[in-house]
Amino acid sequence: MVSLDEKFRTLEADNAPGQEIRQDNTDLNTIMRGEKLAGTPVDFSHGDVDAFPPIPGSHDIWRDGFDRGGQQAYTEYRGAADIREGVADRLGKYTGKPILASNELIITPGTQGALFLALGATVTSGTKVAVIEPDYFANRKLVKFFGGIIVPIPLHFQGAPSENGPDLDKLENAFKSGTKTFVFSTPNNPTGVVFSNSAITAISKLAATHNVTIIVDQLYARMLYSGEVYAHLRACDTRPENLITIMGPSKTESLSGFRLGTAFGTARLIDRMEQLQAIVSLRAAGYNQAVLNTWFLEPAGWIKKRILAHEAIRDDLLKIFRAACFSTATPQAGSYLFPQLSPLDIETDTFVRLLRHQAGVTVTLGTEFAPNLSNNIRLNFSQNHTAAIDAAERIVKMVEAYSK
Amino acid sequence: MVSLDEKFRTLEADNAPGQEIRQDNTDLNTIMRGEKLAGTPVDFSHGDVDAFPPIPGSHDIWRDGFDRGGQQAYTEYRGAADIREGVADRLGKYTGKPILASNELIITPGTQGALFLALGATVTSGTKVAVIEPDYFANRKLVKFFGGIIVPIPLHFQGAPSENGPDLDKLENAFKSGTKTFVFSTPNNPTGVVFSNSAITAISKLAATHNVTIIVDQLYARMLYSGEVYAHLRACDTRPENLITIMGPSKTESLSGFRLGTAFGTARLIDRMEQLQAIVSLRAAGYNQAVLNTWFLEPAGWIKKRILAHEAIRDDLLKIFRAACFSTATPQAGSYLFPQLSPLDIETDTFVRLLRHQAGVTVTLGTEFAPNLSNNIRLNFSQNHTAAIDAAERIVKMVEAYSK
Repeated sequence: MVSLDEKFRTLEADNAPGQEIRQDNTDLNTIMRGEKLAGTPVDFSHGDVDAFPPIPGSHDIWRDGFDRGGQQAYTEYRGAADIREGVADRLGKYTGKPILASNELIITPGTQGALFLALGATVTSGTKVAVIEPDYFANRKLVKFFGGIIVPIPLHFQGAPSENGPDLDKLENAFKSGTKTFVFSTPNNPTGVVFSNSAITAISKLAATHNVTIIVDQLYARMLYSGEVYAHLRACDTRPENLITIMGPSKTESLSGFRLGTAFGTARLIDRMEQLQAIVSLRAAGYNQAVLNTWFLEPAGWIKKRILAHEAIRDDLLKIFRAACFSTATPQAGSYLFPQLSPLDIETDTFVRLLRHQAGVTVTLGTEFAPNLSNNIRLNFSQNHTAAIDAAERIVKMVEAYSK
Repeated sequence: MVSLDEKFRTLEADNAPGQEIRQDNTDLNTIMRGEKLAGTPVDFSHGDVDAFPPIPGSHDIWRDGFDRGGQQAYTEYRGAADIREGVADRLGKYTGKPILASNELIITPGTQGALFLALGATVTSGTKVAVIEPDYFANRKLVKFFGGIIVPIPLHFQGAPSENGPDLDKLENAFKSGTKTFVFSTPNNPTGVVFSNSAITAISKLAATHNVTIIVDQLYARMLYSGEVYAHLRACDTRPENLITIMGPSKTESLSGFRLGTAFGTARLIDRMEQLQAIVSLRAAGYNQAVLNTWFLEPAGWIKKRILAHEAIRDDLLKIFRAACFSTATPQAGSYLFPQLSPLDIETDTFVRLLRHQAGVTVTLGTEFAPNLSNNIRLNFSQNHTAAIDAAERIVKMVEAYSK
């Protein structure tokens, strides 16, 4: 039996993105080398919705929801039926396979809420869960919280682009050895690697063969860069019986402040997720649900322009980090960059705190995403372009100052 | 080891308030007696925020939050520091003991979110948890979901008002027999009973003596009727070390559509709740948090007027139900009424479905609150006054039609 102390040790959130403000950094002045580096502070731990604001008119659509009063305040736990209709229709078209609004989709408080419900609906004490390393830090924490056993699957991301992707042999072995659930993000958070069409097809077939539940987090799928191709697992010919896809408007569309996400797929799992939602927080905030009426209905060209702006930042940051010899995969989608720093002569977590203290740059530690990646840092480069470049240059200077 | 099927059987939400829309009622026409009863449909499963609208100006305050942009979209998981400052100050004054904004308060997605986090932070496999019966239906479900063992404590509510309250002897026995956590609501949901000052003092002392964690849900405390007195456990002289109080603006203040709640108390537990929040849904929707700046700052007389309006509805409904000889406790606070129907010759769950189908009246089954209360129904009477009275009269007619 896992004690509460043990359970919460695995949830330790002091290094989680956005929580840096709670750190006590009084010790840093004694170990700081050189002066503070001037420049606009940049918080790469999450996207800057002031640099890339929400979908135009989202506040007016919110107000429409508020004005609808009680019927919008108290929706079904899985979300308002009329809003689910529209979202299911548009997401079905986008992902290449229809979604039944009545039974196959739930609106959640952010995609974090969707992930929590999906893992809560499929993982209990002793459930073996395949988890990609590196991947979104909450995946591992969620599996542990529900009492599951993590079966790590390495992601190749620092070699030739054609070799990037999950280790399918290890995945097949895991599926053959009693793994019940496989959770992963594509585009991968933190590396920006998009799982290839052949990888997605193989995963889908393997899961069907071994009756494994798939939870695929596609949060960043829309932010797809020039020349890249995205494969939707739910549109594969051979699919597992139990499949949940997660998407939301928090990232590319900058609607994070509304806490809205969706999960769609196998009706039986959506039912369970709703039952769990009923005791977790009842529903996504009623008035906010209305804002989903803007999603996949953005003004013509708006998404395209946003993608190109991110692509330009990505390219500039890659140049800076590669010139400094930080091994960095090229993100194929999304706004994360995951450089490996050259060797430091202090611990990386101390370096990350110094980076914030001395250079005004906030990043997230690689160990949040995989236990062994202690020399990587994650940047969400959805930021003001100029400020991001200046901050990246400060990172390089800081690495020089604290290098071996 | 509890299987997922078992785990989710206890979460079954088909009879939960607000979910009636998902029921299949095609069987009802064959057993219906008499004609449909005309009248404005009333959904007593939750309050009507059209009849009692949100705090004036709450949408403008929301807009202020939205206009603050990124800093409001991405707050600490426990909520924006400046908003916590104000709320902690006002709640400290209201409850009779100061609250440290930095460490002793968390903003949650509704009080449901607060309850989930509080029980998640204190209950794991095998934890014995004292639960009042009847009490808010999610309490029992949450304990079971986290693997805890329910120790039921009866609430007296149908005798003389002076005898109303929890069975303190049973509670002391439970505390002596290894109970680690005690969760309860006062005003009690569904009966409207307010725990007396002597009961609260006794509970606080017992918990301190036996080192039991207390989670007290005070959601309805502000809707206190004429002549009643409310006791805040956190202001007792002798208190348990581990104490969480839960309040939110969803009820009296009708801000439910924003999904906002708060929990405050022991810093170590608040830390754990935040760690859990980080994997559940990150935070209460950022923009919505701003609306807490209206809470306990309502226009002069607004709350008083609202309470008197509810008291008038309460008194009229009590007259109707008591004239029909339904045993009904007088709610001392809150907007719930919990009448015991006279004996029916059909199952109460079928009656409740017929009530909705034939008479346009939605209520919640007593068994959601205590397994043995199959003849009670719960009404949230925060409704249009006239419509509520008419609907109550239809309930009486329906009971006559289906009585033994």
